[in-house]
Amino acid sequence: MPQFRQNFITNEWVIVAPERAKRPDQFAKEHEQRAKRAVHDANCPFCPGNEDKTPPATYVVNEGKSWRLRVVPNKFAAVNPDLIPKREPVGKFLSAEGFGIAEVIIENPLHNQSLATMPIDFMRDVLKTYKERYAALATNEHVNLVTIFKNHGPKAGTSLEHPHSQIIATPVVPPHVRYLLQQAILYHDTYGNCPHCVMLEEELKQKDRIIFEGKHFVTFCSFAARTPFETRIFPKRHSSRFDSITDEELDELAYALRTLLRKLYAGLNDPDYNFVISSSPTSDGELHYEHWRLVIVPKLTTPAGFEIGTGVFINTVPPEDCAKFLRDINVE
Amino acid sequence: MPQFRQNFITNEWVIVAPERAKRPDQFAKEHEQRAKRAVHDANCPFCPGNEDKTPPATYVVNEGKSWRLRVVPNKFAAVNPDLIPKREPVGKFLSAEGFGIAEVIIENPLHNQSLATMPIDFMRDVLKTYKERYAALATNEHVNLVTIFKNHGPKAGTSLEHPHSQIIATPVVPPHVRYLLQQAILYHDTYGNCPHCVMLEEELKQKDRIIFEGKHFVTFCSFAARTPFETRIFPKRHSSRFDSITDEELDELAYALRTLLRKLYAGLNDPDYNFVISSSPTSDGELHYEHWRLVIVPKLTTPAGFEIGTGVFINTVPPEDCAKFLRDINVE
Repeated sequence: MPQFRQNFITNEWVIVAPERAKRPDQFAKEHEQRAKRAVHDANCPFCPGNEDKTPPATYVVNEGKSWRLRVVPNKFAAVNPDLIPKREPVGKFLSAEGFGIAEVIIENPLHNQSLATMPIDFMRDVLKTYKERYAALATNEHVNLVTIFKNHGPKAGTSLEHPHSQIIATPVVPPHVRYLLQQAILYHDTYGNCPHCVMLEEELKQKDRIIFEGKHFVTFCSFAARTPFETRIFPKRHSSRFDSITDEELDELAYALRTLLRKLYAGLNDPDYNFVISSSPTSDGELHYEHWRLVIVPKLTTPAGFEIGTGVFINTVPPEDCAKFLRDINVE
Repeated sequence: MPQFRQNFITNEWVIVAPERAKRPDQFAKEHEQRAKRAVHDANCPFCPGNEDKTPPATYVVNEGKSWRLRVVPNKFAAVNPDLIPKREPVGKFLSAEGFGIAEVIIENPLHNQSLATMPIDFMRDVLKTYKERYAALATNEHVNLVTIFKNHGPKAGTSLEHPHSQIIATPVVPPHVRYLLQQAILYHDTYGNCPHCVMLEEELKQKDRIIFEGKHFVTFCSFAARTPFETRIFPKRHSSRFDSITDEELDELAYALRTLLRKLYAGLNDPDYNFVISSSPTSDGELHYEHWRLVIVPKLTTPAGFEIGTGVFINTVPPEDCAKFLRDINVE
């Protein structure tokens, strides 16, 4: 029986329609696994030896005389750090020069690696780098929002094979972000606590969408997941700012994200995916009603006209089934 | 120079980043045009002769002894008319049985036709049918929103080749829709008029994003278009309800939509696209601050992590360039 489910934070509705479902394993992609590619590509701007094809690095993790991770300004960025973010009218419309800072995190020297296949200490380097660059970009006086994300594979919007993630700092806090905060404020002012903390507690109580739980983080498919295998990694400790993460938490997050990605890699054959770390606007301080988190969206389905028009997603695999499928995959 | 632009209605920001641009014609898809396919497919449930493969029609346009358009309940619908839309708690979360009405408009008996290639009187039948079915479904006491949309091609989320569009009636009015209305209410209560009417007037004044203008409709790429060739067809007469459209307006809308689709077909080689007719919730009456419209989104780019996280789209082709490209294509 199809069912509407409401997202506890945004109040958006999702239709869970399992009658139309494939079995979870039918989403496994038929394609060459990335690990079978060459370890080095002479034409790749991110491969060792081609460092002059990128702007100078803003952050490097070295291993002996070589780098094992580099952060470089995005040469093909949609935003530009030399512009001025002042709002300017265009008739009755509003514009601003495209100020912003865009960096690429080159996650590994090896061309055919991915976060799912690289060793845990490399994963930790990546997350530690996210924290350092987030904190550094947040100090820019014109920056109000810092977004960390990864596009893995062509269906997720990237054409570059070399493992990388991105960070973009913008002067605008878009309504898409602010609307969630406003809903959370209403909840907080009504009930006196963080709606994300309440949601997490309820997910832990209902149990059937939890994939695994550690001391500091919970990895789960949420009650109103919009797409098959959409998964969240939530810190148990309330904080609205990703850069508040401690060293001990970084250790566990590296383990949790790597485990989740390995389960997806094994269960769905290296699917394309996006992930995003949502954190409060850097222009706000620590907020009682916002809760940073990592959301990963495997690109297995195509949003169509109904989703565009209504924002209501049709999810053909109940999140309970996705969570069970991922729980049952052993990647130790 | 990249530029932020704000959507006049939603206040969402778009980054127009032409430095990363392809030329408009580089989006032309390399694939077999649909018109080269067979006119009849014995395995297609929508082809003549297979009427027993769909539920009985709810609406038919005949030509002699044959049909030229059929509306049938969607056999694989995500919603079900026999359920009850009552909200039910699931612990602290909220759900409802998946009540809804989903119909498929089979636009033409010929398997290889498309709205861009069929004669104008068929296009008018399709739009007239949209109006009739919209009005019929709106009378259901549990229905609060009726969404008409078309998914054309696999990138737009359809696997069925036979030309068809869809209509889904739901009991929920999602925040995605209501948020726009709330922004419009604020504008209306501040300035005393419909923000969509003001936006249209401003687009006509600025001129450079207009593709063509008729007596009743304006076809244009908007100032803050989120993707290349995203185009709107706006009625000049203020009304929040699509089913208020008159016969004379239906004639012109058929011409406008067909002309736009033919320009896209010729200029971008039959691109995949979604279109949606947005109209006010059927549970509301005629609204002073809402304005029905048709929005078409060719599927030429892939939204990625940044778009998912922020709602800010990066558009690599300025809408002025898209409008000029489409203006210059002669399809008469």
